[in-house]
Amino acid sequence: MMSNQVHDLDVTNANIPIAISARHCHINEEDFYHLFGRKAVLQKWKALSLPGQFASQQVLTIKGPRGHIDNVRVLGPFRTETQVEISQTDAIKLGVAPPIRMSGDLADSESITLIGTNGIRHKKQGLIIAQAHIHMAVSDAAAFHVKDKDIVTVEISGKVRQLHLMNVVVRVSPDFILEMHVDTDEANAAAIHTHSIGKLIKME
Amino acid sequence: MMSNQVHDLDVTNANIPIAISARHCHINEEDFYHLFGRKAVLQKWKALSLPGQFASQQVLTIKGPRGHIDNVRVLGPFRTETQVEISQTDAIKLGVAPPIRMSGDLADSESITLIGTNGIRHKKQGLIIAQAHIHMAVSDAAAFHVKDKDIVTVEISGKVRQLHLMNVVVRVSPDFILEMHVDTDEANAAAIHTHSIGKLIKME
Repeated sequence: MMSNQVHDLDVTNANIPIAISARHCHINEEDFYHLFGRKAVLQKWKALSLPGQFASQQVLTIKGPRGHIDNVRVLGPFRTETQVEISQTDAIKLGVAPPIRMSGDLADSESITLIGTNGIRHKKQGLIIAQAHIHMAVSDAAAFHVKDKDIVTVEISGKVRQLHLMNVVVRVSPDFILEMHVDTDEANAAAIHTHSIGKLIKME
Repeated sequence: MMSNQVHDLDVTNANIPIAISARHCHINEEDFYHLFGRKAVLQKWKALSLPGQFASQQVLTIKGPRGHIDNVRVLGPFRTETQVEISQTDAIKLGVAPPIRMSGDLADSESITLIGTNGIRHKKQGLIIAQAHIHMAVSDAAAFHVKDKDIVTVEISGKVRQLHLMNVVVRVSPDFILEMHVDTDEANAAAIHTHSIGKLIKME
């Protein structure tokens, strides 16, 4: 329980816009040119909500021991490490067991094969399922009385379905705009669609 | 809030075994013979937890405007109405918008095309996404102080992920053994696997 009534109200009333992340691939420069050829260019197809981040014009196929999935969007700009984010539903289809992690935490993550128009790359690690998280500007964090890496619970509701999602990680940066990121399994379990609003209901 | 402390404890401690329902098709006799031929037999392949219910030896393809899904298991015995249950993830792949419903509630549900080894059937309704529910024997319902059609909340937790699933329907019958039924989206959003245990945490 909070000691401060005003504080309680702030948190209870906190509406969080929700973005649903479909499977995608952050890529490093070396993997990109191997998969798509030396003449390929990592160019913007659609802007993402994070400043400077974009969905590129490239898609690739990801392949595991049990199956493959086509048309996985490559995001830019380049990262130091290639990182593929999928849902647990995708993992079952591929026959892989990626850990549920925050972006960038790739040590001992799952292996995955990437197939581009120009080549194939087997990555020993880099496949994860993203842990649900909320991007916040510094001013949002101050208003909600939370800080970077806090764990919170968010209520998300669609038609008939409603759930409280625990273990949601708060990420604070001057670059962020307020947005919760869930994957397609979480979105579908709550029957929500793009532009749904979550409620920050509890701080743990 | 409960008025009775012992009652509270009963409910708080209630462990509910969870079954994860993959997409499947309950079928009526006419559709079965049309899809699989006059000589086909709806025979048991695997028993289900509900007495007398079984996964049959037949699978079919379901087809919507955007895509199709193969190998959808047909369940027996025959029902009066054919009913196909899929996840929201499946619905997006097929390009359909089934309502979230309890089994048997098919009025104005979604249309779906069924493709068997011997024929094709277009059903004007019968496609739903199952609402999460708990089967209980009469003695379980008495122990948990709930009744048929009560709405409860269940906590389900896997590795890293944890959620409270609201709007879970209680179904009570002398034929039932205690088991919660969730679909693959709900299971994956909680990162649970077969034989997980849910906790009945609240009565609404």
